[in-house]
Amino acid sequence: MNKQLAQLVMERIEILAEFSVEPGRLTRPSFTDALRQANNQVSAWMQAAGMTTYEDGIGNLIGHYPADRSNAKAFILGSHLDSVRDAGKYDGPLGILVALAAVEELHQRGMRLPFAIEIMAFADEEGLRFQKSFVGSSVIAGRFDPQWLALTDADGATLEAAIQAFGGDLSMLEQDAKNPVTLLGYCEVHIEQGPLLEAQNLPVGIVTAIAGSGRANLRFDGTAGHAGTTPMDRRYDALCAAAEFVLAAEALASSQPGMVATVGKIAVQPGASNVIPGCAQLSLDLRHPDNTLRDEALLQARTLAEQISAKRGVALEWNVVQANPTTLCSPKLNGLLARAIETTGHSVIELPSMAGHDAISLATITDAAMLFVRCKDGISHNPAESVTTEDVAVSIEVISRLLELLAHE
Amino acid sequence: MNKQLAQLVMERIEILAEFSVEPGRLTRPSFTDALRQANNQVSAWMQAAGMTTYEDGIGNLIGHYPADRSNAKAFILGSHLDSVRDAGKYDGPLGILVALAAVEELHQRGMRLPFAIEIMAFADEEGLRFQKSFVGSSVIAGRFDPQWLALTDADGATLEAAIQAFGGDLSMLEQDAKNPVTLLGYCEVHIEQGPLLEAQNLPVGIVTAIAGSGRANLRFDGTAGHAGTTPMDRRYDALCAAAEFVLAAEALASSQPGMVATVGKIAVQPGASNVIPGCAQLSLDLRHPDNTLRDEALLQARTLAEQISAKRGVALEWNVVQANPTTLCSPKLNGLLARAIETTGHSVIELPSMAGHDAISLATITDAAMLFVRCKDGISHNPAESVTTEDVAVSIEVISRLLELLAHE
Repeated sequence: MNKQLAQLVMERIEILAEFSVEPGRLTRPSFTDALRQANNQVSAWMQAAGMTTYEDGIGNLIGHYPADRSNAKAFILGSHLDSVRDAGKYDGPLGILVALAAVEELHQRGMRLPFAIEIMAFADEEGLRFQKSFVGSSVIAGRFDPQWLALTDADGATLEAAIQAFGGDLSMLEQDAKNPVTLLGYCEVHIEQGPLLEAQNLPVGIVTAIAGSGRANLRFDGTAGHAGTTPMDRRYDALCAAAEFVLAAEALASSQPGMVATVGKIAVQPGASNVIPGCAQLSLDLRHPDNTLRDEALLQARTLAEQISAKRGVALEWNVVQANPTTLCSPKLNGLLARAIETTGHSVIELPSMAGHDAISLATITDAAMLFVRCKDGISHNPAESVTTEDVAVSIEVISRLLELLAHE
Repeated sequence: MNKQLAQLVMERIEILAEFSVEPGRLTRPSFTDALRQANNQVSAWMQAAGMTTYEDGIGNLIGHYPADRSNAKAFILGSHLDSVRDAGKYDGPLGILVALAAVEELHQRGMRLPFAIEIMAFADEEGLRFQKSFVGSSVIAGRFDPQWLALTDADGATLEAAIQAFGGDLSMLEQDAKNPVTLLGYCEVHIEQGPLLEAQNLPVGIVTAIAGSGRANLRFDGTAGHAGTTPMDRRYDALCAAAEFVLAAEALASSQPGMVATVGKIAVQPGASNVIPGCAQLSLDLRHPDNTLRDEALLQARTLAEQISAKRGVALEWNVVQANPTTLCSPKLNGLLARAIETTGHSVIELPSMAGHDAISLATITDAAMLFVRCKDGISHNPAESVTTEDVAVSIEVISRLLELLAHE
């Protein structure tokens, strides 16, 4: 049964992958025609599974599978339908389609549970278009900031205009927030985007926490100069300082299990091959599930940058641009997930999520959990994303068992 | 006398500094209205000093001070009138105005020498506009490559169109080359652009050689990946590889007296703060007056890059984009310059030029020499360029004595 449903999920993954704004590759920014096609397609599948559907003010697609009684609470499943540029097929859609398969199974058996099931397909998680993550789920969590409406995309269109063009209703953004007392919890199925499950030879794993991140922008200001006439011992080369910092950040993260640090952006001025760089700007992204360890590491990175600055006689500017604390997943839901996985005969493994997810938003209003699905080589945000039908079948089974366990609580 | 002439040079430096395409700062690209104003102004000064003037096919301004006899050879003095962006006032103009002051002195005394003196104000040395250096002097040296006419500036205008708009004559570019048998030699006065004369407390110095340079473009190709989900020990971070190379190049040059190495450009892809850089491209500029040492160092830099590539599992592409051998200055002219400096009462110092100059072109057709003038803090290509009137007076004196010594040979 789950094998057939898993097969169906895989076919639907292929159908959704065709909805793209770029020919030949999958790029599905929020509020585009491609997302409209995806919302409409998923809505049709939801209705075929016995759900009523609607879109909220920002364009999140929500499917409702009624409870067996009135005034019941709702358990939310879901993930997002928007994508990064040149994306893989599974990041986002998998969580929606696995949830839908579990509802489909209930529907085929004519079963209802003592709670409603809502599947949410969030309209904007990746933030590709407006450079702001988790915008869709923030509406559900009552954390949408109206100032975001003025954000603009690469063509100068505002988020406000994009929502309206998509058919959204700006007046609903506030009241679309879910009332926590009506909720039982939230569970999101997602590809791991890392290599741990593959290394352990396990199809699924339980997420303990979504690692917080600290982001800083650095700027080293040295002295631009002639690449020929300035002796090595009279240079204040901003790029050499930046290079030292890149390697120091790498060493810092490598020395702490579970920590990652990335310098993803770098730019130098004036940027000519025969001129010593007078200015170098770079970004730092540092993550670890332990808030204290991460905060300490960020301070340590700053100290390292200051030491480089002092040693080389180049000025340092350090700006923390983001500091997101770690989101802990619900121990109660994780306990139920563990029991559900045990019924499938697989070992239970817990692991942190080093990437952000909509579960961060939902965790602010209800118990939230995540089930990770093994993905090939840990690759994500890349057309090479790959998941097996067998692992999808296990994840459907786990979600079905989770719903069953919740029903018997 | 030279004090007055030096004062005149300083006043003229200020006048020329006003001819700029940018308000408030000195930027005088080749073939612009600003260069036209400079050519016209210098031409007027040349004529006032008893010279006949003309512009050759590419717009080099040439002033001719006749010999005391017919069929005499010519000794060339000069430098360039174009500038870099946000330039200093002395780089280029000083060499022309000091030469002009020496001729002015002869003219005031009604003296002619057994050879003609030609002062050349080259139209394009810096290569700011068409990214090609020494274009003006290459015409004089018969080394102008007609393919350069297709080079375009930032606005898409070709060099060909720029020369024509400036009033040049494309049909003359070949025949404007000087016949070596008509030449006695070339001497260029230029600011040092380095700190050695200041450190030695000397106003002028003799250039032994113009250091050759090797330029390479490098590209490290690793694997782009999620900044959160990719553990440190599974990364192939192209920027970390590039950072190691930047520091290795710095260490390599620092270990060899007289060598300089610069990474002036760096760019990473995809260049987002939350994505591990999959590709890093950078430039290397390496200079030393000794051809063998420099060639060996360039090979060594490549070996270092290969070692980084192998160690980190990132691919390396290495392209040598330029390899200019060192230009040796004329021992004969340098001997005369030494005697000329001795008459001023200053110690004679010899030093290499780590920057390129028009003398590189001229050295291919005649004996070439350069006289460096002390500049404050070794700064050049910067509005902070600074030279004292006293040092200018010394340089005028040295050129006058050089001409005298040449006349008595």
